[in-house]
Amino acid sequence: MSSTHIYSAFDEELKYLMRRISEMGGLAEQMVGDSVRALVHGDAALAHKVISDDVIMDAAEREIGDKAVITIARRQPVASDLREIIGALKIASDLERVGDLGKNNAKRAMAVQSAGIPRKLARGIEHLSELALVQLKEVLDVYSTRSAEKAKSVRDRDDEIDAVYTSLFRELLTYMMEDPRNITSCTHLLFCAKNLERIGDHATNIAETIYYMTTGAQPEGERPKEDLTTDVGAITE
Amino acid sequence: MSSTHIYSAFDEELKYLMRRISEMGGLAEQMVGDSVRALVHGDAALAHKVISDDVIMDAAEREIGDKAVITIARRQPVASDLREIIGALKIASDLERVGDLGKNNAKRAMAVQSAGIPRKLARGIEHLSELALVQLKEVLDVYSTRSAEKAKSVRDRDDEIDAVYTSLFRELLTYMMEDPRNITSCTHLLFCAKNLERIGDHATNIAETIYYMTTGAQPEGERPKEDLTTDVGAITE
Repeated sequence: MSSTHIYSAFDEELKYLMRRISEMGGLAEQMVGDSVRALVHGDAALAHKVISDDVIMDAAEREIGDKAVITIARRQPVASDLREIIGALKIASDLERVGDLGKNNAKRAMAVQSAGIPRKLARGIEHLSELALVQLKEVLDVYSTRSAEKAKSVRDRDDEIDAVYTSLFRELLTYMMEDPRNITSCTHLLFCAKNLERIGDHATNIAETIYYMTTGAQPEGERPKEDLTTDVGAITE
Repeated sequence: MSSTHIYSAFDEELKYLMRRISEMGGLAEQMVGDSVRALVHGDAALAHKVISDDVIMDAAEREIGDKAVITIARRQPVASDLREIIGALKIASDLERVGDLGKNNAKRAMAVQSAGIPRKLARGIEHLSELALVQLKEVLDVYSTRSAEKAKSVRDRDDEIDAVYTSLFRELLTYMMEDPRNITSCTHLLFCAKNLERIGDHATNIAETIYYMTTGAQPEGERPKEDLTTDVGAITE
């Protein structure tokens, strides 16, 4: 077996992993978007679809994991080739969790369905999901181009999600205080909002992984990610 | 360099990874316990300690990751040796997230401090954290013994945490409905409870990873983990 032959077989395996990651990313985006649509429009059928899509995500993560280990064992890559495969493992894990969060939102969509959601809150959730989806989409684009610079810029720009999340968090508390009958549905919406914020967090993780794959180093500086709602202390007083 | 020499150097590297994972596990347990004590007793100094401990966890995960990649590149392990290292990467990632959740609970401890926590709710949170800590401790013991059988049994026994979490969730909603002044602090407690339930989830992940490291396969059967509170629909009506 010539070394060119070995190289190209390895190359094919890397391409396969990349393609599977992109497919997972596409499905993750779709699940997140669908779950929010299911929530806002009370669409139980769409919520069920998201829940069943999660099975595909779980299977994809397992398959990428198995394939990655086989590729390492067979090709014994080093340096950037090895980081490429370890990175694929990490990204698959983050995307699987994004799928879980989409599924959780879909379940909450079914729980609040009967109660309905005030339009203003729905707008807040939609806005948050749009920001999370932009973040996710951009990081998946960066994954195709492998730009360390862009990866770092996606990682460093997560403040907007945090700001919208914190404002929505406060608004949900206000609704709950105004009328106790809002408490159950608003609690579900709080968790939906938190899930969307965590999706942004996973996009940030993926950006860090891409930076690592490309450079072999962790991006410098504290990551800006922070849940600011833990500072919401005594606003009832 | 004789093959015995190579083997024993590799062995040392594996032992090093195992030791670092055990240290992370010990610190994770401590952070979770401390954060709940900080919450229940309103101990701001302890909460601050948990928050600063998280820096150690982040650094440990990065170091284990770097060491794992260097070990794979240098030793080119296959089969169970390779799974051992990939497993260490995954477990370090789960433990790092457990540390994050402890840190988040510590921050919430500071947010609710002024409001104080009713004794009954504090008992619920303590009970949940005890269950999560037992789960975490057991899975770390299984990591030392590498018993696939025990890993599977830890993975399959997560129902109790879910039941306690669901009951606490309902209780918190009731408190919120009784008096709107409880809403902010109870919301933080809801997230604390969710964080503890997620810590149980990470213990389950680790159990699955150990099963995979030992057998090369994923444990069979649907994992029992499920957030049942998404079924809490219209209890206000």
